[in-house]
Amino acid sequence: MRADAARNRTRLLEAAARLVAEHGPEQLTMEAVATAASVGKGTVFRRFGDRNGLLMALLDHSERLYQESFLSGPPPLGPGAPPVERLKAFGLATLEHLAAHRGLLLEAEPEACERHLAPPRRLRVAHVVTLLREAGTDGDAELLAQTLTGYLDVALVHHLTRQRGMSSKRLEAGWLDLVARITRG
Amino acid sequence: MRADAARNRTRLLEAAARLVAEHGPEQLTMEAVATAASVGKGTVFRRFGDRNGLLMALLDHSERLYQESFLSGPPPLGPGAPPVERLKAFGLATLEHLAAHRGLLLEAEPEACERHLAPPRRLRVAHVVTLLREAGTDGDAELLAQTLTGYLDVALVHHLTRQRGMSSKRLEAGWLDLVARITRG
Repeated sequence: MRADAARNRTRLLEAAARLVAEHGPEQLTMEAVATAASVGKGTVFRRFGDRNGLLMALLDHSERLYQESFLSGPPPLGPGAPPVERLKAFGLATLEHLAAHRGLLLEAEPEACERHLAPPRRLRVAHVVTLLREAGTDGDAELLAQTLTGYLDVALVHHLTRQRGMSSKRLEAGWLDLVARITRG
Repeated sequence: MRADAARNRTRLLEAAARLVAEHGPEQLTMEAVATAASVGKGTVFRRFGDRNGLLMALLDHSERLYQESFLSGPPPLGPGAPPVERLKAFGLATLEHLAAHRGLLLEAEPEACERHLAPPRRLRVAHVVTLLREAGTDGDAELLAQTLTGYLDVALVHHLTRQRGMSSKRLEAGWLDLVARITRG
């Protein structure tokens, strides 16, 4: 029964994720998720409470998949590749994650005083610190990690792509160049 | 009369700035500013409307002084010094500006979608782009400038100094090291 419930929840989240990917988060309704997953609307409400609950569960679900990919997924993103290669792959995967969930991430962004305490951001910084140390990069690993993760910020990516019209290719090239400058030491 | 009004306004703002520097923005009252500037409380209200108006005028005043210092002040911050020296001085001056007005800047921070459109931030990015180009730094000057100004972010500085207990000396050393890595090309 428990495993069933978890499976159903995942199925609803995957349906919701597809809808957001196709139409953006603004268009997501409880009804559309119910239809896409072939369940009654009541099931969606019972599971997530309301639309906001669904959006937060969706973000949490995507964040978990993304975290698994760099913590324990296949190389070069996961363990097994040289640290600088993992760092490069990490930034590219993060830019993709930010682009895919931009709308939700912008809405859910913590206010200034809390922003850097949010667990997803702290995990990213800690991961980059680990890779910089493994790579033997000289200097203040924590501050260098803050600089690198600062490039992977949803408000910045939003500005550069939507307000300045930069391509994601350009942002990716900028990341690879930044990693090279920082790790050259 | 006009010059008199401007002088009086400046005198009130300087009194308010001293009070904020000594006791923090939370403690600032219209009455305290009046007393410190030896004027009636009514004068302060007529000039700034309310406490929030005073705080915004104060921030604007400090921002203007800070901008003048790197646009037209004496070298190495202002024109006349080599571009990399100006860049180093710019970061140190910005860290000092952020530390001095941290409380107000955190309160006044624009939300995620608007953050990078705010004129003070755009001016900082443009200034760094100019210095990187003058220094002949190879690579994508705009993205490198975003990375450098990203280090000079009030929410990050707040986190590192107040929530992580890092000294301002350490942040300053981190800035000088970052400039060296970025401009080495």
